[in-house]
Amino acid sequence: MDTLTTPPDIRNLSLDDLTRLADEVRQEMIQAVSTTGGHLGAGLGVVELTVALHHVFETPDDRLVWDVGHQCYPHKILTGRRDRIQTLRQPGGLSGFTLRTESPYDPFGAGHSSTSISAALGMAVARDLGEQTRHVVAVIGDGSMSAGMAYEAMNNAGAQNTRLTVILNDNDMSIAPPVGAMSNYLSRLLSSKPWVSIRNVAKDLVAHLPRPVERAARQVDEFARGLVTGGTLFEELGFYYVGPVDGHRLDQLVPVLRNVRETTQEGPVLVHVVTKKGCGYEPAEVAPDKYHGVGRFNVVTGALHKPVPQAPNYTGVFAKGLIAEAEHDDRVVGITAAMPAGTGIDAFGVRFPERCFDVGIAEQHAVTFAAGLASEGYKPFVAIYSSFMQRAYDQVVHDVALQNLPVRLCMDRAGYVGADGATHHGSFDLAFLLCLPNLVYMAPADEGEMMHMIATMAACDDRTTALRYPRGEGEGVDLPERGTPLPIGQGRVVREGRAVALLSLGTRLHPCLRAAEALGQRGLSPTVADARFAKPLDMALVRRLATEHEALVIVEEGSRGGFGAHVLQALAEEGLLDNGLKVRSLAMPDRFVEHGKPEQQEADAGYDADGITATVLALLADETGAGAGAGVGTVIGDAAGHPPRA
Amino acid sequence: MDTLTTPPDIRNLSLDDLTRLADEVRQEMIQAVSTTGGHLGAGLGVVELTVALHHVFETPDDRLVWDVGHQCYPHKILTGRRDRIQTLRQPGGLSGFTLRTESPYDPFGAGHSSTSISAALGMAVARDLGEQTRHVVAVIGDGSMSAGMAYEAMNNAGAQNTRLTVILNDNDMSIAPPVGAMSNYLSRLLSSKPWVSIRNVAKDLVAHLPRPVERAARQVDEFARGLVTGGTLFEELGFYYVGPVDGHRLDQLVPVLRNVRETTQEGPVLVHVVTKKGCGYEPAEVAPDKYHGVGRFNVVTGALHKPVPQAPNYTGVFAKGLIAEAEHDDRVVGITAAMPAGTGIDAFGVRFPERCFDVGIAEQHAVTFAAGLASEGYKPFVAIYSSFMQRAYDQVVHDVALQNLPVRLCMDRAGYVGADGATHHGSFDLAFLLCLPNLVYMAPADEGEMMHMIATMAACDDRTTALRYPRGEGEGVDLPERGTPLPIGQGRVVREGRAVALLSLGTRLHPCLRAAEALGQRGLSPTVADARFAKPLDMALVRRLATEHEALVIVEEGSRGGFGAHVLQALAEEGLLDNGLKVRSLAMPDRFVEHGKPEQQEADAGYDADGITATVLALLADETGAGAGAGVGTVIGDAAGHPPRA
Repeated sequence: MDTLTTPPDIRNLSLDDLTRLADEVRQEMIQAVSTTGGHLGAGLGVVELTVALHHVFETPDDRLVWDVGHQCYPHKILTGRRDRIQTLRQPGGLSGFTLRTESPYDPFGAGHSSTSISAALGMAVARDLGEQTRHVVAVIGDGSMSAGMAYEAMNNAGAQNTRLTVILNDNDMSIAPPVGAMSNYLSRLLSSKPWVSIRNVAKDLVAHLPRPVERAARQVDEFARGLVTGGTLFEELGFYYVGPVDGHRLDQLVPVLRNVRETTQEGPVLVHVVTKKGCGYEPAEVAPDKYHGVGRFNVVTGALHKPVPQAPNYTGVFAKGLIAEAEHDDRVVGITAAMPAGTGIDAFGVRFPERCFDVGIAEQHAVTFAAGLASEGYKPFVAIYSSFMQRAYDQVVHDVALQNLPVRLCMDRAGYVGADGATHHGSFDLAFLLCLPNLVYMAPADEGEMMHMIATMAACDDRTTALRYPRGEGEGVDLPERGTPLPIGQGRVVREGRAVALLSLGTRLHPCLRAAEALGQRGLSPTVADARFAKPLDMALVRRLATEHEALVIVEEGSRGGFGAHVLQALAEEGLLDNGLKVRSLAMPDRFVEHGKPEQQEADAGYDADGITATVLALLADETGAGAGAGVGTVIGDAAGHPPRA
Repeated sequence: MDTLTTPPDIRNLSLDDLTRLADEVRQEMIQAVSTTGGHLGAGLGVVELTVALHHVFETPDDRLVWDVGHQCYPHKILTGRRDRIQTLRQPGGLSGFTLRTESPYDPFGAGHSSTSISAALGMAVARDLGEQTRHVVAVIGDGSMSAGMAYEAMNNAGAQNTRLTVILNDNDMSIAPPVGAMSNYLSRLLSSKPWVSIRNVAKDLVAHLPRPVERAARQVDEFARGLVTGGTLFEELGFYYVGPVDGHRLDQLVPVLRNVRETTQEGPVLVHVVTKKGCGYEPAEVAPDKYHGVGRFNVVTGALHKPVPQAPNYTGVFAKGLIAEAEHDDRVVGITAAMPAGTGIDAFGVRFPERCFDVGIAEQHAVTFAAGLASEGYKPFVAIYSSFMQRAYDQVVHDVALQNLPVRLCMDRAGYVGADGATHHGSFDLAFLLCLPNLVYMAPADEGEMMHMIATMAACDDRTTALRYPRGEGEGVDLPERGTPLPIGQGRVVREGRAVALLSLGTRLHPCLRAAEALGQRGLSPTVADARFAKPLDMALVRRLATEHEALVIVEEGSRGGFGAHVLQALAEEGLLDNGLKVRSLAMPDRFVEHGKPEQQEADAGYDADGITATVLALLADETGAGAGAGVGTVIGDAAGHPPRA
């Protein structure tokens, strides 16, 4: 493999060489992920498919769009990024997903699922408009097929007469086992149809290729027709169905893909390829869910390196809190959209299988399904990552908040998520939800408060409630067996101080407290408040902070336009800014942030303890510099004995 | 009909009486809409279906969920709202959609399409959990079937064993002619399958009903099986398919629905009902698109009352601007999601059919399809109403903004829309889009500026651009043949003044200017600025307004968390609030606003000219009362000769 760095190098390889190449790619990938962590099973499942695609198609001029992108490591190894594969998901290294800025072989970035057919259709239409001839190929997993977006794209593609190849990578396993009628349909399709037996005819085919194009095309087309062994559903949607094909046999994949590439068939083609997640690495084959996304591991034994947790993680606490509420109220129902383990809904489902619903990758449906349950008096908790809740935005607005239905929106992975990068940060939920009337919106400062907030959601049955919490571990505080409902819209002062107040939302409380301590070293004694509720705002608290202090710093883990912006708007409305309150809002910077370490991402945002400390000092330095508000400046000067640092 | 006010009254009617009732409902509905305006064709198409559903199902205990809800007028007439049907869409009157707060017969509200199956499935699962036996029925049009959300719901329903009835109302016409493979499939289904001939067996069926349930059920089930005449696609998705049924023949509808209600068939059932939009009113039958949504009209002649426009409307100007750009650049492409007439994309399509794409009700796909085109160097303008852009939020975040792809997001119906009500107001786009990095976000003050902004979007090829504009007419200003690109991120001062500045976004400029005039009567001379760009903010302008005035009022037509909130955050960041700038942000109130007159909605929001004037006066009065900032207070006192009004 050392001489092969880009796809043109493998266009002319023999089947034997391709097979060897696939083996090397597989080993390289296992080696890399064992040291970097990342998505293992998905990539291992498409090693042969990736080799075959780059062998047959003229990438990057032919466009290859990987859905979700977490299966793209073999693709990266084969497209000029082999030398950096050990930097996967590391700060400054390769992204764990496809990324337009990373390589011309990544014509479309991903991270969320089910976008590939839409993007590829756009590329295909662009090709037609430009009177070009390139091929456009989307590779999409069966799990991604449960999302409405994939259907919308198929529905549109099936009605257009444009050439488009969709590879359905059927590995019977997305992040969680696939659910839904489409999945059942694919299983029936596989069990009822003969495996495409292509080996015998493949030689003929190859022999035909050099002949005059017209004749070859006709034969190829006839051959392709012979491949149609079912797939009625796709055919009804206007696709030409080819398959199923064994996705680990290059001797079958290559001729079929070549056929598809060279057929004169108009309109979209769907190639049904069957693969095995984790293929070629026994631990991952045996336990595909465990090896979907991994940390470091021992290649020989498959033993996963598990860092010793310091405290329970928020996901686990969510499950604990939800189960505690469900023990006391049989109207509590748990719903997720193909994230059972990631959200903790799996643990809830073990305890309450009949009240647990995984609807597949279908966030829109998940939320409105919950609205239907809420309309009948049930208490649905919908657990969806913050960044995936974006998929259900209209449903939250139109079906839930507008009708004031008591759906409980539980958003894990709020704030920076680290290695998964820009597509997965929970950045925008505060901005896109706080604008909605009726909503109660909470964020816990630690896992103990989270238990109380879950209890608050269970008790709050006349309104929509939302909860955001970060990826990762809590603060290690004591956990109650069950939470106690909090008074709606009431924050708390955690530390009484003077001159400057820190108003924290969610897990920024502890950095605020650490900042207060650091500021104490300099003779300052900030008040620190935990907002608890981003909505409704505790206006009594905000008013008190604004009127009893000369400066107010609002701290949150979210984009502009979120908590700080809403507090500012409320302050303005009440005239609380009129008298020169020095107010600052610390939030995420206005840019998309790449993968990296969360601590660094938080430091860059300026809302870790150091950043908060620096903001307060700069704020008071400004003031001293301006010669006004001597009170605070005096405190610094007096106590710390030296001028404040900008 | 005068004696029949709720569905129980019609449970025992004969077929003849039901037929007469349907005729009366139809006449009543035509009469009502002729005076109120509203959705005509959709309701006329389901008169018999509505009568049959309420006859057969035990509403409201059986749940009946109308998708979109614009076909619900006959339903309203039959469910206790006949006496108020003349108040449809009027301020304080009946909503034009289903509304939970309006009637127990409306178990789920709508306005946006394709939500009904999800909601109904939630209700069905709630029924199962509660061990109840009620029926749950969703009625969904064929157009709504192109949305991914409907597919997600079918995919989930088809895998569950819960009883659920989905009525597919196939009228071959949503708002626009349906597009997509599903639509083609339904057409093929209809042309290839015999009409369900139920008349002959209906009598037997009715005869069976009083017999012991078990035996009847068995026979009913056998009979129902006999109805299956195709619908493979739905069957593959796990639905039991029944149809097609003539939706205007009560003698066929009633026994089929009764069958479906009483069958012991487990799992979801799909009843394929074929209707004619506008049925029974000739003008609407002949021109269904014209009579989809209407103003007042003459019942006898069908002549539509067309108010004489004072100025071109924004939708028309959008089409004009887009066509002008496309004439000069063959990379300009127009895309919409089943709103060709509503967005003006239809006019673009007449001029450039090969560059015009209506993808059906599929906002998610529309945006990512556009991203695919943009990734290949095209200039896609995606025209989607502000409230429907909510459906494509994740696609805007993940596929467009994150990749910095130059997709042009064009949002008609931004701000209050009047009679369509809460589901259709364009309230949240500023909040959910301004938080996104990379975006350029514009709003024109009038239709002339809109032409320039369209030109700006066409020229801005390195970033994502967005444009919001309201429903309705412009200001009557001169229109250029083609716009001239504006400098990105640059606002303008329209009126130089002092003491107080009004910073307007979009069409609030003219109310601001009128307020300035009114304030001038009182001796005040506000500065008035047109932001033009909500993002990137013109910080030079904002800084100037903030430092050269004692008060700043920001005015926009959107929810909290939008333009004003972002300006406040920017002001705080630069320390521009530190010196006691009196700042107010006028935006929509934090509540969902019912249907009504836009002028009244704007007045209630406090951002019409009177509201802006009052805000400024109150702001300065506060100041005078506080004894500070004498400058401004003095101006009022001096010139107007009397104390300012609160």
